[in-house]
Amino acid sequence: MTRTQVGIVGAGPAGLMLSHLLSLNGIDSVVIDNRTRADIENTVRAGILEPDSVRLLVDTGVSDRVLRDGQPHEGIDLRFGGESHRVDFRALVGEAVWLYPQTDVFADLADARERDGGDVRFGVSGTAVDITEPAIRFTDSEGRRQEVRCDLLVGADGSRSTCRAEVPEAVRAHSSREYPFAWFGIITAAPPSAPELVYAHSPRGFALISRRTETHQRMYFQCDPETDPADWPDDRIWEELQARVAGPDGFTLREGPITEKTVLRFRSFVAEPMRHRALLLAGDAAHTVPPTGAKGLNLALADVNVLSEVIERALAKRDGDALDEYGPRALDRVWKAQHFSYWMTTMLHALPGATDFDVRRQLGELGSVVGSEAGARFLAEGYTGRWPA
Amino acid sequence: MTRTQVGIVGAGPAGLMLSHLLSLNGIDSVVIDNRTRADIENTVRAGILEPDSVRLLVDTGVSDRVLRDGQPHEGIDLRFGGESHRVDFRALVGEAVWLYPQTDVFADLADARERDGGDVRFGVSGTAVDITEPAIRFTDSEGRRQEVRCDLLVGADGSRSTCRAEVPEAVRAHSSREYPFAWFGIITAAPPSAPELVYAHSPRGFALISRRTETHQRMYFQCDPETDPADWPDDRIWEELQARVAGPDGFTLREGPITEKTVLRFRSFVAEPMRHRALLLAGDAAHTVPPTGAKGLNLALADVNVLSEVIERALAKRDGDALDEYGPRALDRVWKAQHFSYWMTTMLHALPGATDFDVRRQLGELGSVVGSEAGARFLAEGYTGRWPA
Repeated sequence: MTRTQVGIVGAGPAGLMLSHLLSLNGIDSVVIDNRTRADIENTVRAGILEPDSVRLLVDTGVSDRVLRDGQPHEGIDLRFGGESHRVDFRALVGEAVWLYPQTDVFADLADARERDGGDVRFGVSGTAVDITEPAIRFTDSEGRRQEVRCDLLVGADGSRSTCRAEVPEAVRAHSSREYPFAWFGIITAAPPSAPELVYAHSPRGFALISRRTETHQRMYFQCDPETDPADWPDDRIWEELQARVAGPDGFTLREGPITEKTVLRFRSFVAEPMRHRALLLAGDAAHTVPPTGAKGLNLALADVNVLSEVIERALAKRDGDALDEYGPRALDRVWKAQHFSYWMTTMLHALPGATDFDVRRQLGELGSVVGSEAGARFLAEGYTGRWPA
Repeated sequence: MTRTQVGIVGAGPAGLMLSHLLSLNGIDSVVIDNRTRADIENTVRAGILEPDSVRLLVDTGVSDRVLRDGQPHEGIDLRFGGESHRVDFRALVGEAVWLYPQTDVFADLADARERDGGDVRFGVSGTAVDITEPAIRFTDSEGRRQEVRCDLLVGADGSRSTCRAEVPEAVRAHSSREYPFAWFGIITAAPPSAPELVYAHSPRGFALISRRTETHQRMYFQCDPETDPADWPDDRIWEELQARVAGPDGFTLREGPITEKTVLRFRSFVAEPMRHRALLLAGDAAHTVPPTGAKGLNLALADVNVLSEVIERALAKRDGDALDEYGPRALDRVWKAQHFSYWMTTMLHALPGATDFDVRRQLGELGSVVGSEAGARFLAEGYTGRWPA
C-alpha cells in the first residue's frame, strides 16, 4: 500500500502536467495509466499549442524543446471563394501559436517526471477507484496488486474516462452535441504546401492543410462518418483535396505517397460537475471538442493549471472551500472554447442538407470576419486562447 | 401614355427613396403602388435606422425630422444569465442607431416627393409590367387604364413582389431559410422599462424589449409559429415576458394595458440576380431578413443608394455596363446583413430540440462576445451597419 496526497488516473498530458505542477508546490502524487509509455508515444496526435500552453511548459521547467523543435505560426489562412485570407495573430493579438505534436508534449512531461523522481506507473491493469475512502487499486506492470491511498483523486483518463462514471447519475449533468460529419485524415510524404495552416471552406466541404515536418504533411477533409478509407485510393484523395482548395490564384497541394489514412469522428461534450466529493475530472475526461478549434490539449493544460492551484490551497493551506472554485473557473474557459470550436466547425463545414442560403451565409460570415479588424481579432483571440479575462 | 426614364413599382421607402435620389440627378421616374397612402401609413412597422440611413435621409434633403423626433440609441443591452451587458456602440464604433418608425420614414419620403413634384400614384390596381419593351400598365385610383413606358423598371414591391416573378425561372436563383419560431409582439401603454433596447436570452426563449414613445412600449417574445394570440390573455403574456428578463438584479418590465397582439413570422430570403434585362429589384423584393438584426429598412435604403448611382451612369452617362455593378455591390452588403441577422437570431433564440449543450454554448458565445472588445465591436459593426469596406 502506498500513501500519497493526490492519486491521478491517466498519464497523458493532463495527468503528467498536474503531477509536475503539484510537485513544484511540494505536493506528492502518484500517476497510473493502463497504457505503456510506448503505446502513448506511438499514438500520433496533432498539436497546436496556445502561447499560454507553451509558457506553462517552459516556465515550469518541463522543457524548452518546444521552443527549438516547435514551429511558431503567426497566423492561419482562411480560404474561401477560392481565395486566401490571412488572419495575422501577431498583428491582432500579439501572439503566435506553436505547432508541436502532442506526442512530444507527452514525452517532455514523462521525461520531466522521471528526472524529478515522480511516481508514474505505466502499463497497469484492473484499475478501480474508490471515491469514498479515496484510493486507486490496480495491478502493476509486473503483475502485483497495488493500492494507492490518497486525499484527492483526479480523473485525467481521457474521453472514455472510467473515473467519470464514479459521479453518481443523480448529480451528473452531461451535455453533448454530435456532428453529422467526420474528418478523413492523411499523412503524406511531401514538403509543406503552405507556410501556415490552411482552413478551407468549399462547396464540397471543409479541408485542413497542415504540416508535420519539412518532409511530411498532414491533411484532412470533411467526410461522411461512415466513410471507409478502403474506398479511397490515393488518386481519389488527391482529387478531392485539390478540388477543395482550388481557386483562381492557382493554389495547389504538393502531393506525395500517402502513408496513413484514418477517419476521425468527433463531438462536443462537457461533463459537470467537474468535482464530486474527493474526485476531480480534468482534460478530455471532463470535456471534448471538435478538432477544428485545436483546443483539446490546451484545455487540458488550462484545467490542470487551475486544478493544481486549488489543490495546493485545499491541501497545503487547509482551505476546504478551494476545491469548489475549480469547476466554475475551469468551465468559464471550457464553454468559451466549446463555442469557439463549434463556431469554427459550423462556419467552415458543409452541413448535410444545407441550402444554397446556408452556403452563401457562411461566405457572408467569412467575408465579415476577415473584412473586419474586430472580427479577425475575435477569431484570433479564440484561436490563441487569449480571451480577455 | 406617360413616358419616363425609370418606372418604379412600389411606393414604400425603397421606391420613394430611389425616386427622390434619381430626381436629384435629373432623372425622371414614376412610382406606383397598389396601396393608398393611408394604407401604408397605417401599417405600423418598427424602425431602427443605421447611421448611414439617417445621413442619407438628412443629407439628401428628405427631412431632418428624424433628428428631432427620432431617438438616438448609443447601445443595446444584451441580457443573458439574468444579467445585463451593455454593447456601447458609441465607444466601439463611434456611431449610434436611431429609433424612428418606418411609417415616419415613409411619410417623410412621400412628403418630399410631393414637395419636389414627383410623380407618385397610390391606390392603383391591375398592375402588369413588361420587361421586354419596358412599361408598367395599371388602372389608376380613378379607374382609368394607364401605361407608363420607361427605359428601366424597378421592382421595389416588397417581400411578395410580383415584379420578381418576371425573372424567368431558368435564370432565377432564390435561396432561403425558414426558422422554427416566430415573434409574439405586443404594444402596451406603459412608459419605457429600459433606456435602450434589451435583447434577452433565456432558457424560455428570446425576448426583445423596445419602446415606441414615452408612453408606449413594444415588446416581443419568441413563440411557436402556430401560436394563436387569442390563447394569450394579458396576464399570461406578462408572466412570460417577466420570466424571460428576470434576474438577480431585479430587472422587471413596466406593465400596462396591451393594445395590440400579433404573431410575426419571418424568414431569410435572397433573390438573385437582382437585375434581369431592364428589371432591377430592390429592398424586400430582393431579400428579407429576420427582424432580430433590424436590417430590413436599412438594406432597402442601401440598395437604392447603389441603384441610383448605377442608373445615373447607365442613363445620363450612357454607360451600358454600369447596371452590371448593381447586384454584386448590393449583394456584398446583403450577405453580411443576412449573416448578421442569422447570427443575432441563432445566438439569442431557443432552438426547438436544443440540448443543454446548445444552451450552454450560446451562453459561452454571449460571454465571449461581451467579454471581448473585439467581439463586442464586431457585433456593433453589424448592428450599426458599419462594416469595414
